[in-house]
Amino acid sequence: MRVVLAAAAALACMSAAAEEPAKHLTMGEIIAASKPDEWRAFDPADMLVMTLSGGRTIVIALAPAFARNTVANIKILVAQRYFDGLAINRVQDNFVTQWGDPNAEDAARKRPFGAAAPTISPEFTRPFDKRIAFTRLPDTDGFARHVGFVESMPAAHDRRAMWLSHCTAMVGVGRDVAAESGNGAELYAVIGHAPRQLDRNITLVGRVIHGLEHLSSLPRGIGALGFYEKPEQRTPIVSVRLATETPGLRYETLRTDSASFKALVEARRNRRDEWYKVPAGHIDLCNVPLPVRAISPKPQ
Amino acid sequence: MRVVLAAAAALACMSAAAEEPAKHLTMGEIIAASKPDEWRAFDPADMLVMTLSGGRTIVIALAPAFARNTVANIKILVAQRYFDGLAINRVQDNFVTQWGDPNAEDAARKRPFGAAAPTISPEFTRPFDKRIAFTRLPDTDGFARHVGFVESMPAAHDRRAMWLSHCTAMVGVGRDVAAESGNGAELYAVIGHAPRQLDRNITLVGRVIHGLEHLSSLPRGIGALGFYEKPEQRTPIVSVRLATETPGLRYETLRTDSASFKALVEARRNRRDEWYKVPAGHIDLCNVPLPVRAISPKPQ
Repeated sequence: MRVVLAAAAALACMSAAAEEPAKHLTMGEIIAASKPDEWRAFDPADMLVMTLSGGRTIVIALAPAFARNTVANIKILVAQRYFDGLAINRVQDNFVTQWGDPNAEDAARKRPFGAAAPTISPEFTRPFDKRIAFTRLPDTDGFARHVGFVESMPAAHDRRAMWLSHCTAMVGVGRDVAAESGNGAELYAVIGHAPRQLDRNITLVGRVIHGLEHLSSLPRGIGALGFYEKPEQRTPIVSVRLATETPGLRYETLRTDSASFKALVEARRNRRDEWYKVPAGHIDLCNVPLPVRAISPKPQ
Repeated sequence: MRVVLAAAAALACMSAAAEEPAKHLTMGEIIAASKPDEWRAFDPADMLVMTLSGGRTIVIALAPAFARNTVANIKILVAQRYFDGLAINRVQDNFVTQWGDPNAEDAARKRPFGAAAPTISPEFTRPFDKRIAFTRLPDTDGFARHVGFVESMPAAHDRRAMWLSHCTAMVGVGRDVAAESGNGAELYAVIGHAPRQLDRNITLVGRVIHGLEHLSSLPRGIGALGFYEKPEQRTPIVSVRLATETPGLRYETLRTDSASFKALVEARRNRRDEWYKVPAGHIDLCNVPLPVRAISPKPQ
């Protein structure tokens, strides 16, 4: 079977690699050789677990360092079970999958926000802060002066402000024309080529770390902007919970400030496996994969 | 309903815009104001029409200027009805959808190539040729010295070689480790963030100009590299035809060397509608939309 990429063999080579180290390790080899302290568990207090009909589970790591007020508002909504029984309302090909209240514009039928705020001052950027560790990519792009990672999030800064970048899998807050109109009750995940033009224009609150395929493989809406035209086309949301309520679901990620992550970025900038004939010598922020793996929760 | 982008209103404003021209036109306004001679019909002799079960139609514009021998081989396969009854075998999330013969590796069961070649010298790049019109983007990226468009295709060059770029919707030729092992019998379309590291490593033969959503919304395979594990998970291909055989399907595209396309690129580099608060001042090659529309075939 011809394939576009042959990467699966990498892990199988580890025992051989331990005896006779290859000069250029693949991503699989780098992950296998990484040390336990290079991994960081996602904090369940900043993780959402969304379950769609059919038991499809999507896990989202939140980024309160970038969107403190919006993340807090989302947690209020989740605690009120606001999202349970709502739906995925919009899937626009090569762009976003969006969920929330299909009746949000109908004052009589919309679900009440309860203790959550209906509007929030925009958190499109946050002030630059040297104390926030920023792991810079070796390469640059035209969208920002500095691009790299803050913990598990792709991010950028210009020494005055910092912001999250709209890479595939990032989760943001739908809004109207008014900058403060987003509140976290309507969320989207990027499912296509990174729409970096949205950076600094909308509040990003985190990234999907598990189950993105359940959002990206949904039927596209054929209404304007990918909205579904008929209610029965929407995918129901069974529940959204904070991961503190789902003890079986725990994940960890390779720290982006670790030596292994640095090696991974270099391995992806210049692919050295036999399949590749010309290493790119460059990587785009949104092409950097984030290793994430499930972990067993500690015994109570 | 809060949306990530409010673009639909653009077309509705055209009559007003004609009386009192806006300083910054949106993409919809630019397309509406474009002139007929800024559009170019896709040549049906270089267009494939792939029909999946359920009547889902995907149209692919071929690029013989970049992959002359591989495109010719694909046309031989299509003329032999090679693809009819084969299947989509692999969908890897945020990467590619791939189709061909599920039994390609089984000498006893594989479908014969007939008059088509089993191997083809790689067409990963082609010699630079000043006579091939190259419309340069105003922005650059780290993957190539010059990026832009050759007709409807995203492309790059370094004044010695030219090549097509792996943007979303591009169609390429699966291959094994050997560079010449691709032949066009196994094809893939990019359905996720542009994997530009594949540029100059694999033969690209064209781009999907209609129906990409039928490839990107398919269930993901859970086998290695997104291959389906069970035959019944594969989506059957009803037929692949050259568009010369499908007289009802004709498309045209805004010429990438036209004034309207130039205006469109600028409108996307710096979004000026009221929704956007900070124009990006930059565009990535793979974020440039290609306007394509159906046209009525000329009476026979």
